[in-house]
Amino acid sequence: MTMRLSARPQITVALVLLLSMLSLAAGGKLLVVPVDGSHWLSMKEVLDGLGQKGHEIIVVAPEINMHIKPSETFIMKTYPVPFTKEDLNEQFHSFSQEIFEEGSLLERFVKIYQRTNRLSALFLPACTHLLFNKELVRYLEDSKFDAVFTDPFLPCGQILAEHLSVPSVFFLRGIPCHLDYQATQCPSPPSYVPRMFSGTADRMTFLQRVKNLIFGLPLLFLCDFVYHPYANLASEFLQRDVTVPDLLSHASIWLVKLDFVFEYPRPLMPNMIVIGGVNCAPKKLPQEFEAIVNASGEHGIVVFSLGSMVSEIPMKKAIEITEALGSVPQTVLWRYTGQVPSNLPNNVKLVKWLPQNDLLAHPKTRAFITHGGSHGVYEAICNAVPMVLMPLFGDQMDNAKRVETRGAGLTLNILEMTSKDISDALRAVINDKKYKENIKRLSELHLDRPIHPLDLAVHWVEFVMRHKGAPHLRPAAHELNWIQYHSLDVFAFLLAVVLLSMFISLECCLFCFRRCFHKKGRTSKPTKSKSH
Amino acid sequence: MTMRLSARPQITVALVLLLSMLSLAAGGKLLVVPVDGSHWLSMKEVLDGLGQKGHEIIVVAPEINMHIKPSETFIMKTYPVPFTKEDLNEQFHSFSQEIFEEGSLLERFVKIYQRTNRLSALFLPACTHLLFNKELVRYLEDSKFDAVFTDPFLPCGQILAEHLSVPSVFFLRGIPCHLDYQATQCPSPPSYVPRMFSGTADRMTFLQRVKNLIFGLPLLFLCDFVYHPYANLASEFLQRDVTVPDLLSHASIWLVKLDFVFEYPRPLMPNMIVIGGVNCAPKKLPQEFEAIVNASGEHGIVVFSLGSMVSEIPMKKAIEITEALGSVPQTVLWRYTGQVPSNLPNNVKLVKWLPQNDLLAHPKTRAFITHGGSHGVYEAICNAVPMVLMPLFGDQMDNAKRVETRGAGLTLNILEMTSKDISDALRAVINDKKYKENIKRLSELHLDRPIHPLDLAVHWVEFVMRHKGAPHLRPAAHELNWIQYHSLDVFAFLLAVVLLSMFISLECCLFCFRRCFHKKGRTSKPTKSKSH
Repeated sequence: MTMRLSARPQITVALVLLLSMLSLAAGGKLLVVPVDGSHWLSMKEVLDGLGQKGHEIIVVAPEINMHIKPSETFIMKTYPVPFTKEDLNEQFHSFSQEIFEEGSLLERFVKIYQRTNRLSALFLPACTHLLFNKELVRYLEDSKFDAVFTDPFLPCGQILAEHLSVPSVFFLRGIPCHLDYQATQCPSPPSYVPRMFSGTADRMTFLQRVKNLIFGLPLLFLCDFVYHPYANLASEFLQRDVTVPDLLSHASIWLVKLDFVFEYPRPLMPNMIVIGGVNCAPKKLPQEFEAIVNASGEHGIVVFSLGSMVSEIPMKKAIEITEALGSVPQTVLWRYTGQVPSNLPNNVKLVKWLPQNDLLAHPKTRAFITHGGSHGVYEAICNAVPMVLMPLFGDQMDNAKRVETRGAGLTLNILEMTSKDISDALRAVINDKKYKENIKRLSELHLDRPIHPLDLAVHWVEFVMRHKGAPHLRPAAHELNWIQYHSLDVFAFLLAVVLLSMFISLECCLFCFRRCFHKKGRTSKPTKSKSH
Repeated sequence: MTMRLSARPQITVALVLLLSMLSLAAGGKLLVVPVDGSHWLSMKEVLDGLGQKGHEIIVVAPEINMHIKPSETFIMKTYPVPFTKEDLNEQFHSFSQEIFEEGSLLERFVKIYQRTNRLSALFLPACTHLLFNKELVRYLEDSKFDAVFTDPFLPCGQILAEHLSVPSVFFLRGIPCHLDYQATQCPSPPSYVPRMFSGTADRMTFLQRVKNLIFGLPLLFLCDFVYHPYANLASEFLQRDVTVPDLLSHASIWLVKLDFVFEYPRPLMPNMIVIGGVNCAPKKLPQEFEAIVNASGEHGIVVFSLGSMVSEIPMKKAIEITEALGSVPQTVLWRYTGQVPSNLPNNVKLVKWLPQNDLLAHPKTRAFITHGGSHGVYEAICNAVPMVLMPLFGDQMDNAKRVETRGAGLTLNILEMTSKDISDALRAVINDKKYKENIKRLSELHLDRPIHPLDLAVHWVEFVMRHKGAPHLRPAAHELNWIQYHSLDVFAFLLAVVLLSMFISLECCLFCFRRCFHKKGRTSKPTKSKSH
């Protein structure tokens, strides 16, 4: 809470709030159920922020995971899962290899789909092993948490929140098949809100609008299909029938990692808090990297990473890339854990890990070669570094398209690009001033905000902890079904009333007409002769 | 702009922003076109905030007005209007008198409608006299403003912004007949977003949803009717055909004075910034009021005001009210400029003006008797003071209903209430703890925000000044017509495709069937005899 001026009079309210804040500072307790992978990396930054506020944070994670490691900020509770570290590594290794396998679009799509399925087949048993770990769940029940902080990409955290009857805060960029729109009751007209993978922008021609609407339809069913096992699991665990959209709709606050500098403007709901760029709080650059950057001379450096999911690439591709990197005067820092290419030039430094945001923040950084993951793109926008994008899967194609249409980078097809394509693109974004100018403009807009998104995220998690949720932000739309929401029953009723009135009027007219006609008939005929 | 940590690396971007901020601080120039009355009072607070940031602020106001007075914060430019101070006073005087005139609902409605019309008949010529004041407009053209800050309740400011080709920021609570939803392209499903004057809440029965939808329909036409003269004026002045919704849709930012602690949750657009409670920044209580409050003893005070539009009431009503006020042990501070009632008791102090928010902020304040204007209600929420509401016109009935349903006050019908009703209601909200508890809970939620709404308002005005607008927040929906927005053309196209496919399939089937049948017919008949 911020009190703007020295507010002597608002003392009563302020004192109550202060007391509740103090009690939180002394004993605020947060349960965190994260999603592994890059999802965890930005969530951890918010946990660091919350840790600094003195909250007790318990992170629950599978024993076997990629990135979720113990930290001073939180207590980590792990639970056994039915797979080994090797299984996990093998899945990710094959995943990143298959991305580079050539083949028809359909073949590649089917392969990636199968691989994604196999990856999620690891997540579901992990969730089951968490929920049915009696000892751990009893510990969580006894812990009396103030809130659950979770990533709804996998609904495991929300299932726990329901079981514990604790309000929840979500942290996400989006959920596949737009389940987030559905669960927040947020309108998203297909006429200008592009559907995932449709490749359309917000300004569409008629045929693009047709495409966007058609792309949206299967998403509705796809979601049901993808999340169905979680609905079954939740129904079994909570001992009542639930659906995943209904489960997710109970979240108090949705912290959404988007910013309209990069995303297309679209409606929001009051409990959706926009925190794009939350992962962009700069820290001190480690000494070994500082040394490399300083040694790069006037030409500066290029940062190169294909994200946490892909750490090695086929040797043929690696040699092509290395050849291109060797042709620029910049020092290239490349996150790469595969076999060292034979043609590695002096200006290319391979590293197993790099502090991406802090390197991008360095004034000597000239360009960023990236797969176009949302974290990387926001870090590039935040630090005004033009990009060469090599999108691999998921939302990365859409991200790359947006960066390119804003003139802040160039996109390459990772399967078809030649060494020359890479070096041409890299030289262009470094030497053609328009790329730097465009990304600088985006960066200025993005950074010109009244409060840092990390502080905003911390505030809203604390808000939910302090007030046991945020029911005043929950729209009444959640209590309506699809027909009621769109007022179809009201329209049908009004139509029925109109038709009925018309029918009755018509009948009246006909009745009068018949009466008149009949009378006329009677008067026209020799009635007198009859009456007399 | 806030930089969260000591951000050594983001130097380039930060420097650019700093320079633009410095240049603004040295020469940022803002044109303000306010709306008179209570609308001005909260806008002035934002101007004070902007003035402290060192901007040059020019306020353009009619020579004859109620509340817009020169100040140290801004330069005031007035223009002659075709009415006198007496005309204005007379209109307001009759307006407040007619509110208290008894009669059937229809009679009262017609009278208030006529009076509102006569009041707006003052505003339109004022706008005409501003736009066609050549000297003033030339001065404004030469002034090279960075932005226009205006209240879209009357579209005069936006017409000027269009003429000057300067981006605009709007400051409003709402526009009659929901023109704000239309002009921001903000969805507002009638199934859970209550229409003005419909008297419905967000959770509605089927019949209430029918009522809400029916109430919404005439609003669409009413708006056209009410704002039509402004469209004509704008078309003449700008020398091109414009509509008012189209004009307003060009605003960069809408600063909306609402908070979901009080309003029903509903969709928002990215360029709508919620700043409810902006008028609630406490200042020091003037000495004479401090003295009265301190002298009130353990029972404290009651604040009583019927708003800036109504300063006197019929004597019969005044005597009734005075009798009720005399029956409570609190000191009552009543803003009242009419004739002093003969039965004025010692505990009632009549004042011509009172610092409403600062009095409500005093811990000795026990209750607030109000007409339920949105400013007053937000000040009561902000300072956790329970209310007795006597709604008079406009949105005040809706406001009163919301306060009452939240258990934070009691509503009285100002025409029918007796002295006993008033004293009963006043005693209840003071002595029954539930009212205080409910308003305290609302207050806690309202005040627990990451940034004060006044700072938020100042930030976004400066944002628009710094970046010459906020086009990245403008949804593509503005480029679609009604049919396109709702994808009706796409649905029609898809339906046509489906029907055509069905027709073709049917024709094919029939063709095949006929062929088979024919063949069968042919085979069944002695064809051989024919062929041979």
